[in-house]
Amino acid sequence: MVDIVDAVEINPADVLANVRVVLVNTSHPGNIGAAARAMKNMGIKHLVLVDPRDYPADKATWRAASAGDVLENAIVVDTLAEAVADCGLVLGASARSRTIPWTVYSAREAASKAINDAVNNKVALVFGREDRGLTNEELQQCQIHLNIPTSDEYSSLNLAMAVQVACYEMRMASMEAFAGEQPAPEWDIDYASSEDNERLYQHLERTMTTAGFYNPEIPKQLPTRMRRWLGRSRMDQMEVNIMRGFLAAVERKFNDK
Amino acid sequence: MVDIVDAVEINPADVLANVRVVLVNTSHPGNIGAAARAMKNMGIKHLVLVDPRDYPADKATWRAASAGDVLENAIVVDTLAEAVADCGLVLGASARSRTIPWTVYSAREAASKAINDAVNNKVALVFGREDRGLTNEELQQCQIHLNIPTSDEYSSLNLAMAVQVACYEMRMASMEAFAGEQPAPEWDIDYASSEDNERLYQHLERTMTTAGFYNPEIPKQLPTRMRRWLGRSRMDQMEVNIMRGFLAAVERKFNDK
Repeated sequence: MVDIVDAVEINPADVLANVRVVLVNTSHPGNIGAAARAMKNMGIKHLVLVDPRDYPADKATWRAASAGDVLENAIVVDTLAEAVADCGLVLGASARSRTIPWTVYSAREAASKAINDAVNNKVALVFGREDRGLTNEELQQCQIHLNIPTSDEYSSLNLAMAVQVACYEMRMASMEAFAGEQPAPEWDIDYASSEDNERLYQHLERTMTTAGFYNPEIPKQLPTRMRRWLGRSRMDQMEVNIMRGFLAAVERKFNDK
Repeated sequence: MVDIVDAVEINPADVLANVRVVLVNTSHPGNIGAAARAMKNMGIKHLVLVDPRDYPADKATWRAASAGDVLENAIVVDTLAEAVADCGLVLGASARSRTIPWTVYSAREAASKAINDAVNNKVALVFGREDRGLTNEELQQCQIHLNIPTSDEYSSLNLAMAVQVACYEMRMASMEAFAGEQPAPEWDIDYASSEDNERLYQHLERTMTTAGFYNPEIPKQLPTRMRRWLGRSRMDQMEVNIMRGFLAAVERKFNDK
């Protein structure tokens, strides 16, 4: 396996191309379609269906929306063993701990472990039946069991929702592992300088004083609270200019008296 | 306000009880039901529907499965403003960047920020229409825009899937924040509610108009820029009171002429 540190340009999309979703013995075709859409939204396109009960079906196509290509390219096989034969890592979704404890990771932990493997290996995310998940025998074909944390009060996720969360975690893990730091949200205007911020604060305090709202000789907490608020909001240059323009207009109107 | 440092046993379930999901103008009742199930699976139970197109409906009940109680307790209102009036933090789901950039966080970052707020404030997660999300006007009522990273090839998530991912991140954040980790340093004053923030904005706009600085008939970008700034700064109640006191003093002095 290639050392990831040496692989300078790894594209998250290429890594996700090595990930497949395997749905075992799905009852409702709507769930297959919804899973296909969830996958494509997250950049995962390989779908393998193990002995689906009702497929192909219009309902699958309808729920897939613009992920019809994922359905068209889906492979239908008879057994889980066939579906994962060429995979280097197989993760099985598991609702709760079994009689014999297995290695169980949260979806986040599992994705983080799986994504490095996906650089050079085929990785399968396996999901069982709507009503009773994967059998113990099937789970034993999975190296890692993946669990999505849920409320004790209602722990049964819809199948396609579980696919969504697992694929989302794979995408997030791929972005974290191979795209470095997330770029900061871009802003249209440069941030105001400290000097601009200070001038705005002084202008505000002066206008508050002229308006009779604030007495600098009894400042109490007002300057601290106003500075804290203005500082926290990281104003850009245009926002400072708008507020200063407003304060100047107030002062002019005061002087017009 | 409870001092968090003293509150040794914060239960994630109690924090999630302060979180609501707001669905604006949803077209398909199936999505409302699927969203209700996704919410309850993650331990979030308060659903507010703003002007749903087709609700109540059998399809919603069917898709909700064992989350029928979430639907039964759902509140239906006419406007987004009503839905979030008592909220200290409003997060709006946004697919892409707008003309004027807003503070955009990934679902994970947004949940991490929101969950501490949810200890003492009502927090709203707002989702727009299936076909075109939230309007710019609605997004301006949200302090934080929440974006779920998606594939460039197919970025349009199903509505209920987006609710699932956001609620999942809220649950994960609540588990991380309150399962042993020290909560972030707390604020001394409660955050202002959406209603208070809106009143402050209206007061500022009115005073800007009276001062001759702003002409509401030619608004240009000023309202958007001021709302964005005020929303971003997450004002507390005392800061809002100070600014409103100042604006009231300015108006009185104008009238004294």
